[in-house]
Amino acid sequence: MNFQESDFDLTNYLKNRKELINSELDKIFRNFGSSSRIVKAMRYSLMAGGKRIRPILCLAATEAVDGDLTCALAVACSLEMVHTYSLIHDDLPAMDDDELRRGKPTCHAAFDEATAILAGDALLTLAFEILSSQSKIKESNALILLNVINAISIAAGYKGMIDGQMKDVISEGTSLSLNDLENMHSLKTGALIEASIFSGAILGNGTQDQIKQLGIYAKNIGLAFQVTDDILNVEGNPEIMGKAAGTDKNRKKSTYPLIMGLKKSKVFAANIINNALKSIKYFDNKADPLRAVARYILKRKK
Amino acid sequence: MNFQESDFDLTNYLKNRKELINSELDKIFRNFGSSSRIVKAMRYSLMAGGKRIRPILCLAATEAVDGDLTCALAVACSLEMVHTYSLIHDDLPAMDDDELRRGKPTCHAAFDEATAILAGDALLTLAFEILSSQSKIKESNALILLNVINAISIAAGYKGMIDGQMKDVISEGTSLSLNDLENMHSLKTGALIEASIFSGAILGNGTQDQIKQLGIYAKNIGLAFQVTDDILNVEGNPEIMGKAAGTDKNRKKSTYPLIMGLKKSKVFAANIINNALKSIKYFDNKADPLRAVARYILKRKK
Repeated sequence: MNFQESDFDLTNYLKNRKELINSELDKIFRNFGSSSRIVKAMRYSLMAGGKRIRPILCLAATEAVDGDLTCALAVACSLEMVHTYSLIHDDLPAMDDDELRRGKPTCHAAFDEATAILAGDALLTLAFEILSSQSKIKESNALILLNVINAISIAAGYKGMIDGQMKDVISEGTSLSLNDLENMHSLKTGALIEASIFSGAILGNGTQDQIKQLGIYAKNIGLAFQVTDDILNVEGNPEIMGKAAGTDKNRKKSTYPLIMGLKKSKVFAANIINNALKSIKYFDNKADPLRAVARYILKRKK
Repeated sequence: MNFQESDFDLTNYLKNRKELINSELDKIFRNFGSSSRIVKAMRYSLMAGGKRIRPILCLAATEAVDGDLTCALAVACSLEMVHTYSLIHDDLPAMDDDELRRGKPTCHAAFDEATAILAGDALLTLAFEILSSQSKIKESNALILLNVINAISIAAGYKGMIDGQMKDVISEGTSLSLNDLENMHSLKTGALIEASIFSGAILGNGTQDQIKQLGIYAKNIGLAFQVTDDILNVEGNPEIMGKAAGTDKNRKKSTYPLIMGLKKSKVFAANIINNALKSIKYFDNKADPLRAVARYILKRKK
């Protein structure tokens, strides 16, 4: 498999997609009118400069099956809200106790703990409000949207992302086996990434086989994303990342570099990105964004 | 309007409904298989002996419009999950800092803060998983269910329950006007009660007029519920209530008895229950449960 950059201009693509998503998120919040404290806190964290990976993957999956992006855009925004809520809660003093996120004070640091808890709750709830919003719904889409809501709530829930975070909190300071680590990450990060790609694919009316192959792609890039995150925590540049490096080591967190070493972690990440690329090799050039994103995960500096 | 008990046996009705809801909730959690820490905490708070007012109102609204209870039961359970999540988060040290709820240690007291935050998150998310669950859905119901999800997420969200809790947290120790107090409660408690009754009514295929009248009923009993809650906090029996009395006064919380006095608060509660009963006076005897619940709110001891 070839990891060379294709002709596809990923930098430009990511920039455009990010602008599209940010402008849609902005529009949603503009409609809220004058801002209460809770809305200010929601907006603060949501617009704090995230990479928008999940919504971009959702849209790219719709594109890959040649679907219409209109409805997928609202779903993509909801996915970013679910992701942001999880970051706000993970950062709380009772959890990871982080004061900085994306180079800015975390929600509880900028506001206070009660506001941060509620802002997280409100973003999660808003995601479902938008997913179920009638104005965007044609009757024929209703079952698909319920399917999307179901997939996202399962991925974000007690046997998905939340269970992953619970395991992460419990395991801090203990050493995990590679299996346990992989399981934790597949829950904490992988599940919502998979749901993002699944949602995009079914919203775009992908075939059963396309959805299956995109599922394999999603599983692999979700895992790769976490491995490279661990690698960046060891050797990343804090200025580029907008967050401190070395924090995992200081906290004695189980990470891929800690368990298998830095070099093997990099080989491992390359292998799973390879698997991701293989799974979509029969897709046409509409899947180029997904291919480019997979390669980007391996090379990212933040 | 007559506040005398009708022939309707409310005690028995509430007991049966509570058993129905508890057994359905039990069934949902039995299907989860072996319990992780997060599931244990979710179950602990959900089964801690709540009155099940919201699910009972949802089912009673379906009944009142002569609808089928099968689909409403799953929705009713979801409403109790949303309610329980809000209690878990409200009880957190950063919010109301309560150690007791329904006579038992609150979730963070029984487990820990991180687990309580996540258990609340997970119950909210599970509510949407169940609401969107495919197995219970006929295609013709899909739009109604999206409507229900939309109503619940709006009621529970940044311009509903969460905004009410935010206002409650901010206002602690300050004195509120009657208007501000009413607004806060209509958000914090009223919105989800209204969504419960609205959901039950549309799931039962109620007419536009029935839904409108039930909306007025809901608004009034939601408010009455809060007024009587404040009254109980002044003169209730802690042993019957399963929680301490006098806590509002100690915290200098704005309450109806504080603002309008105990006697006037009771008259006010009676008046709004009267309005609730008037709004459904043209419903047949299938609305007797709703009538009896309205009268019960006025006389409740816990």
